[in-house]
Amino acid sequence: MNQYIPSTASTALPGRQQELVSRVLAADLPRHVGEPVTIAGWVHRRRQLKSVSFLIVRDRTGMAQVVLTGPLAEALDDLPEETVVQVDGLAVASAQAPCGAEITGATVTALSGPAVAPPFDLYRPGIPAGLATILDNAGVALRHPLLRAPFELAAAAVAGFRGYLDLAGFTEIHTPKIVGTATESGANVFGIDYFGRKAFLAQSPQFYKQTMVGVFERVYEVGPVFRAEPHDTARHLAQYTSLDAEFGFITDHHDVMNILTGALTGMTTAIEERASDAVTRLGITLPPVPAAIPEIDFGNAQELITEHTGTDPRGEPDLAPAGERWLSGWALREYGSAFLFVTGYPAVKRPFYTHPDPRRPERTRSFDLLFNGLELVTGGQRLHRHDDYLAALTARGENPDDYAGYLDVFAHGMPPHGGFAIGLERFIARLTKADNIRATTLFPRDLHRLAP
Amino acid sequence: MNQYIPSTASTALPGRQQELVSRVLAADLPRHVGEPVTIAGWVHRRRQLKSVSFLIVRDRTGMAQVVLTGPLAEALDDLPEETVVQVDGLAVASAQAPCGAEITGATVTALSGPAVAPPFDLYRPGIPAGLATILDNAGVALRHPLLRAPFELAAAAVAGFRGYLDLAGFTEIHTPKIVGTATESGANVFGIDYFGRKAFLAQSPQFYKQTMVGVFERVYEVGPVFRAEPHDTARHLAQYTSLDAEFGFITDHHDVMNILTGALTGMTTAIEERASDAVTRLGITLPPVPAAIPEIDFGNAQELITEHTGTDPRGEPDLAPAGERWLSGWALREYGSAFLFVTGYPAVKRPFYTHPDPRRPERTRSFDLLFNGLELVTGGQRLHRHDDYLAALTARGENPDDYAGYLDVFAHGMPPHGGFAIGLERFIARLTKADNIRATTLFPRDLHRLAP
Repeated sequence: MNQYIPSTASTALPGRQQELVSRVLAADLPRHVGEPVTIAGWVHRRRQLKSVSFLIVRDRTGMAQVVLTGPLAEALDDLPEETVVQVDGLAVASAQAPCGAEITGATVTALSGPAVAPPFDLYRPGIPAGLATILDNAGVALRHPLLRAPFELAAAAVAGFRGYLDLAGFTEIHTPKIVGTATESGANVFGIDYFGRKAFLAQSPQFYKQTMVGVFERVYEVGPVFRAEPHDTARHLAQYTSLDAEFGFITDHHDVMNILTGALTGMTTAIEERASDAVTRLGITLPPVPAAIPEIDFGNAQELITEHTGTDPRGEPDLAPAGERWLSGWALREYGSAFLFVTGYPAVKRPFYTHPDPRRPERTRSFDLLFNGLELVTGGQRLHRHDDYLAALTARGENPDDYAGYLDVFAHGMPPHGGFAIGLERFIARLTKADNIRATTLFPRDLHRLAP
Repeated sequence: MNQYIPSTASTALPGRQQELVSRVLAADLPRHVGEPVTIAGWVHRRRQLKSVSFLIVRDRTGMAQVVLTGPLAEALDDLPEETVVQVDGLAVASAQAPCGAEITGATVTALSGPAVAPPFDLYRPGIPAGLATILDNAGVALRHPLLRAPFELAAAAVAGFRGYLDLAGFTEIHTPKIVGTATESGANVFGIDYFGRKAFLAQSPQFYKQTMVGVFERVYEVGPVFRAEPHDTARHLAQYTSLDAEFGFITDHHDVMNILTGALTGMTTAIEERASDAVTRLGITLPPVPAAIPEIDFGNAQELITEHTGTDPRGEPDLAPAGERWLSGWALREYGSAFLFVTGYPAVKRPFYTHPDPRRPERTRSFDLLFNGLELVTGGQRLHRHDDYLAALTARGENPDDYAGYLDVFAHGMPPHGGFAIGLERFIARLTKADNIRATTLFPRDLHRLAP
């Protein structure tokens, strides 16, 4: 694919004309063998030998090799790595060059000033520094083909999420991130000075996406959510990207699990289709999403853990991380699935809007999706009757009046509905087996980090 | 298109089976004439006549009419408008019914409690209340087919924006909304208590999208931006959705204008394709986006305004709203275009990162796009050399050290680049000729409004 760059055009009255000149992208160089070409990108690496020098130019599609001889080679002294250059030359076939073609007889023009050396060499094949150094210098570090790869996966995954839901009749929404009351709990919420009043950053679009089920039946949102996480761990962030879906006219949480399965399939398929080069670069294998992801009831899960491990979690209202890891391994062994639904969590550990299981009201029509040993998604059916909300809040010792704005819409007719939220950065971290979620977060925010 | 709803499934160990029952959507009813069908949705309107009653059920695709006779009709007394119902009956052809089909011999089951009456009748064809009442009750008001229509346009427009840029080699990014320093100016910024430190809500992703040009060359973001606007006007919001694009290897701002023209074409095309029903409902006509949107130089624009109106703006560094309106009308008369680029704005009114016009350095390689009389988009070429940033800040009496985090990446090699930002709500407001931007904003935030 060529990218056409119009030259400077007239800035006079309407009707300007433009000349077009073409820039060839690195990945397309082999298709231009025998032709004069212009490429442009970053000086990735210089190799100055006795009689010949090589300039590797990096653009968004890959690397192009430029062969320089004689006085041309001396120009490289003024073009340190990361300088942006335009190269005009002849594309020739070369078995040794990346992509099987290289450029000879070239003129090299700097498009930026000579680059200051990055804090580490970006041309090394491995990751060139520790996480703290990378994050402190993210603007430059992300140019490294391995460090930018997770974000290529993320962009593809989001496209796949949307693509599946668009086809399934969902409508995309954009909801307020500044809210008057904390969404789900008073803890871990950032306060804002809102024109002299106290406001908060939204911890989730939960209320808004439920409300919009009353308007569009099926909605999704891709947007930032905020948690004032006081824990400095490898998996907590103060801001992350939440892939939220919510929809009506369901029978129970299994309908939610089905749509989630479809969305995950869309995400991994899109990664294969749009980001296969990044997958190869990372050396990872994408896990197949089973047509029916295995499911285990919370109680049965505890029985299994008791039977097969040294611990007895029965009576606990939630699964411990070690239990989740064991269950995930069990599902991989038994069903060949990296994904496992755990359903029927006790009501006591779920938010007040969770729909109880009518057959055993202390349990819920909720689920967690475990992926590669960790909880990736939480979801389920929600309450949809106003009276049920009043009863649920009262039973928890809460005053329904405090939730009046949230509850009002349920008095006006809402269908049975449910939904889920996928943490984008966490999904990519599990896919890429990153040790720290910060490696899959663009400019992460945490207890200590507010820049870059 | 049918929507399949799985029935309650086993929650036992993996391998659950599901039975599927189908729900027919209102728009698909004619294709099921002669068949028993199940529909589900909201009671939009009841009409109880002497010998027969009609129930209009609204779902996300439209309206379905149910004919009830005898004792069945009495059931309507317990199903006030907005109650959610399931209707099982026979689809029959009917010239009088919406879509040409209706349901007879029906059983009606309530899926919600009897709905409390909304603060205004949602079944009236016109908009049933003033803006303040609508916004106060947005969760229910947006169910009105006219009030929800702008958000159908918005979802389609965003899909078209992404669709065009995806094909043009752009990568989608998600950047921090909490920042350590105010992005562009100290004014109009919301402060946050960030773990005891002072932080701010991002006014734009400007810094991050420029930085990511160094990584992916071409990036876009669809996300919230925040302005602590102290003005209580029909066009100011505290949060809006910004469609941001930024890309490298350009010649000048005309390349930016070309990509913007493509994006706008993608947006209007997607609205035609995905939201034609909402366009019809609103009774609007989509403006064609010219292949080459007319362009006028800022100075020439001032000359024209002086020549043709009673005012002489020459010497002013910016266009007044009245001037923008006049120019927009002029472009419509002269070129049949609802869009007009004004280029070459004086540097004094543009941000410090704006690239000057080398031929006349007091002017810039920047543009505004006027649409239906208002500025819709601002964009242009940015500075890309570190030295130029230092000089530009110094010339403005600013200390480059205050911008060290922003400037660092430019020392490491950045290509000539530029970009733009489209305000989504403003675009939809101009398309739908809304008097107030709040009518095209989902749960708007302003000086006074923090709920719902």
